[in-house]
Amino acid sequence: MLEELKERVLKANQYLVEYGLVTLTWGNVSGIDRKSELVVIKPSGVDYNLMKAADMVVVSLDGKIVEGKLRPSSDLPTHIELYKAFKEIGGITHSHSENATSFAQACAEIPCFGTTHADHFNGPVPVTRVLTEAEVNENYELNTGKVIIERFKELDYLGIPGVLVAGHAPFTWGKDPEDSVKNNLVLERVAKMALNSLMLNPQLSKLPEYILNKHYKRKHGPDAYYGQRKK
Amino acid sequence: MLEELKERVLKANQYLVEYGLVTLTWGNVSGIDRKSELVVIKPSGVDYNLMKAADMVVVSLDGKIVEGKLRPSSDLPTHIELYKAFKEIGGITHSHSENATSFAQACAEIPCFGTTHADHFNGPVPVTRVLTEAEVNENYELNTGKVIIERFKELDYLGIPGVLVAGHAPFTWGKDPEDSVKNNLVLERVAKMALNSLMLNPQLSKLPEYILNKHYKRKHGPDAYYGQRKK
Amino acid sequence: MLEELKERVLKANQYLVEYGLVTLTWGNVSGIDRKSELVVIKPSGVDYNLMKAADMVVVSLDGKIVEGKLRPSSDLPTHIELYKAFKEIGGITHSHSENATSFAQACAEIPCFGTTHADHFNGPVPVTRVLTEAEVNENYELNTGKVIIERFKELDYLGIPGVLVAGHAPFTWGKDPEDSVKNNLVLERVAKMALNSLMLNPQLSKLPEYILNKHYKRKHGPDAYYGQRKK
Amino acid sequence: MLEELKERVLKANQYLVEYGLVTLTWGNVSGIDRKSELVVIKPSGVDYNLMKAADMVVVSLDGKIVEGKLRPSSDLPTHIELYKAFKEIGGITHSHSENATSFAQACAEIPCFGTTHADHFNGPVPVTRVLTEAEVNENYELNTGKVIIERFKELDYLGIPGVLVAGHAPFTWGKDPEDSVKNNLVLERVAKMALNSLMLNPQLSKLPEYILNKHYKRKHGPDAYYGQRKK
Repeated sequence: MLEELKERVLKANQYLVEYGLVTLTWGNVSGIDRKSELVVIKPSGVDYNLMKAADMVVVSLDGKIVEGKLRPSSDLPTHIELYKAFKEIGGITHSHSENATSFAQACAEIPCFGTTHADHFNGPVPVTRVLTEAEVNENYELNTGKVIIERFKELDYLGIPGVLVAGHAPFTWGKDPEDSVKNNLVLERVAKMALNSLMLNPQLSKLPEYILNKHYKRKHGPDAYYGQRKK
Repeated sequence: MLEELKERVLKANQYLVEYGLVTLTWGNVSGIDRKSELVVIKPSGVDYNLMKAADMVVVSLDGKIVEGKLRPSSDLPTHIELYKAFKEIGGITHSHSENATSFAQACAEIPCFGTTHADHFNGPVPVTRVLTEAEVNENYELNTGKVIIERFKELDYLGIPGVLVAGHAPFTWGKDPEDSVKNNLVLERVAKMALNSLMLNPQLSKLPEYILNKHYKRKHGPDAYYGQRKK
Repeated sequence: MLEELKERVLKANQYLVEYGLVTLTWGNVSGIDRKSELVVIKPSGVDYNLMKAADMVVVSLDGKIVEGKLRPSSDLPTHIELYKAFKEIGGITHSHSENATSFAQACAEIPCFGTTHADHFNGPVPVTRVLTEAEVNENYELNTGKVIIERFKELDYLGIPGVLVAGHAPFTWGKDPEDSVKNNLVLERVAKMALNSLMLNPQLSKLPEYILNKHYKRKHGPDAYYGQRKK
Repeated sequence: MLEELKERVLKANQYLVEYGLVTLTWGNVSGIDRKSELVVIKPSGVDYNLMKAADMVVVSLDGKIVEGKLRPSSDLPTHIELYKAFKEIGGITHSHSENATSFAQACAEIPCFGTTHADHFNGPVPVTRVLTEAEVNENYELNTGKVIIERFKELDYLGIPGVLVAGHAPFTWGKDPEDSVKNNLVLERVAKMALNSLMLNPQLSKLPEYILNKHYKRKHGPDAYYGQRKK
C-alpha cells in the first residue's frame, strides 16, 4: 500500500545523507497521505544506505502500525502530533544537523539577518520552551510535538516551516517529504550564516521587515515571480 | 543564437556547484555579448544538473526576452544595470556563498588583511547601503543594481570586481562568465579567512598599502609577472 | 590467528578515514578477544589505504607481540591499560579529530548541552589531568592509560564511553572495534556543536538532568526503545 | 634532466589539491637536487590537473632557467633563498591554506597547545615580521625568503619545518617535496585546532615543555619509536 509515497519517503531520507544533514542514523523523514490519513515513516535506527522502500513503516494517526515489519522511528509520535495540528503539510523532517542543532542547544532562535533566510522563513526560526520533567518522563515524543504546536499558536506554520526544539534539534515540514528535507537544508545553511554574522557583530540587528516581506513574497504566495511557472 | 556564449554561461553556472558556492538554486551567472548587446543568463529556479545550454535565456539590455522558453533568473534586472554601468565587464555571478553572505548580513565590508585578498581585490570588498523601503517595493532587483553602482562611484570596478549587498549576498564580475565565478570563489575564501583572522584579533589592522599594491600589480596590469605570458 | 578480529580491526581503522576522523596516520583502533586475552591493533605509522588484515599486530596483555611483522601502534600501552581496567569493553579508538582535540587542548570537558550528546554519553565528556613530568618521561603511553582510569574512578565507563586526554586528544571505547569508532565520531560531532553553542552563549547552562537521563535510556539499558529489536 | 625529481614535484603539487590546501592555483611545491644544485618547481599559474611532469621548470640557484618552456612560479626567489640557507632541506611548499593563512594575516604565531602540534613542530610555529616598503618594492620574493631566514636565526629549521609570513601565508619544508607538503597539511590542521582552542579559552596556556619534547622525540631523532623501522 502507498507504494509511491514509500518511494518518496525513502528518497527524502536519502537526501538527508546527500545534503550532509545526518551522522549515523540521526534523522528521519515521513510523509502523509491525507486521503487515507496514513503516515509513512523511516524505520528506527536503520542505515540509510541499506533501507529499501519496503522497509518504510505505514502507521495510522493513532500511532498503530498498519504495514511494515520494522519498528517506526522513535520520533513518530512527534510527527503524528504535527500532522494532526498542521493540516496543510505533507512531509516532516527531523535531523540533528550541526548548526541548527547548535542554536537549539543554545535555546536561541535564529533571527532573520538576510535574504537567504527571508526567501524561505517569513520571520525568525523560533525555539520551543524546554519540556518539563513530567512532559519528559511520560509520552516524551508526543509532548515534543505539543510544545512545537504551542510555540506556533501565534505563528503561521506555512510561512515558517521549521522550529528548533530547545536542547534538542530542528524539525522542519513542507508540502511533501522532499520539501520538508529542503527546508531542513535551508535551515542548516541559514543557521551557519547567522552564527558567522553574530561572530562578526554580536549586536547585529535583524533585516528590516520590508526586505523580509519582499523576499518571502518573491518566492511564495500569489505574486511569486521566482522560478518557473507551475503547469 | 550566441550558442558559444550559452555554453560558457552554462559551464560557469556549473562551476558554482563544483566550487561549493551554491545550495539548491541560490546563484546565477550571466554573460554579455558586447557587440549585439545581448545578455545570456541562467533560467530561474532550475536545477544546475538538469540545465542544458539551450535553456539559457537571451535578453536585451532593456530586459526583453529575445530567445528562450524559460523565465530568466529573477536577479536579471541587477545584472542588466551592472552591464550598463560597468562597460568593460563580460560576466556577472551572484551567489549566497556562506562566508561572503555572512559579511553581507553583518553589513560589514571585508578589510584587506592579506595577500590572498590583495592578489584579487585592490582594496576592501565594499558593502552597499541597505535599500530603502521605496527601493524595495518598486523595482527591487533594478534598485539592487543601482545601489551597487552608487557604491562604486569612487571605486574602480575593474580593480575591485565584487561587492556585498547589505543584508543580502555577494555579486562579482569579470572579463567573462568564468572569470566572474572565479572572483566569487576568491571572495568566499577571502571572507572565510578574514572572519578567522578577526576571531584571532578583533582589532586587527589591515595590510599596509604598499604590500596591497605590490600584490595586486604582480597579477594585474602592464607589469604583471604572475602566470604565463598571454599569446 | 584471530583472523576475524583482524578483519574487524582493519575495517574499523578504515572507518576512521571514511568518517573524516584522521589526517595522515593520526589514529588507531584495536579490538580484544576476551577469551584468549589477546589484543589486535593497527601497526604504527602505516597508511590506512595500504594496510591489510594480515598487517594487524596481535599482542598479549603484558605487551608482547604474539603475531605480526610490524611494530604495533605506539599507543598500545594505553590501549592495554584500558582493556585491563575496563573489563566489559571490546574495542578502543584513538584519534586526533579536529573538534574533540580542540577541547582536549583547551583542557576543557564537553558539557552536555543537548540530546545528541545525551543519546550517547550519559554526562559530560571528562578531561584527564595533565600528566606530570615523571609520568611523561617514563612509560608515557602506559601512564596515559593510568590517568584515564584515574579520571573514571567515580564514573561509569559504559555510560561515558570516551575521554579527552588533556593537551592531547580523545580516546573512545565500545563493545567492539566498530562501536568504539562510532563513539569517536559521535564525540567529534558533539564537540563541534558544543563549541558552536558556546560561541552563541558562553554562559550556556547544561541540559536538565531529566532530559539527559531520558535520552540516554531511550537508546541504552533494559527499557531502550530506539532502533530495532535485537535477535 | 632530473626526470624522477620532476615526477615527484608534480605529484607533490597534486597532493596540494588532494589535501584541500589550495584554491585555484594558489600554491606551489619545489624540490632540489643537492648534487647538481638544481631546483625543480611548478610553473606559474597553471592548473594542477593539466600539469605534466614535463611542465616542471628546472632552475639553477642563481635563478636562471636551465630547462622548461614555462615561467616558473613567481615565488621561485623565496624558494631559492630558503634552499641556500637551509642546507638540509630537499623540498619546499607554499600554500594559502585557510587556517594557517588566517594566523599569518593576524600576524600571530601558532602556540603549541597539544601533542598533534608537538609531534611535528618542536615549538610554536613562528611568524615573520612585516616586510618594509623598500623590501616589498625591490626584490619582493627574494626578501620574503630573507625575512624567513632572519626569523630562524635562533631557531632550528629542522625541528620547526614551517613559518607564517606576516600578512601573507605559510611556507613549509621537509627532507623532500612530499615531506614539505605533509608539513603544510599538518600546519593547516594544527592552525585550525589552535584557533578552536583559543575560542574555547582565549587565555589558554601552552603545552608544558616536557610533553612537547616527549612527543617530538617519539617521532624524530635517534630515539624515535613511532612508525616502522626504516630499512
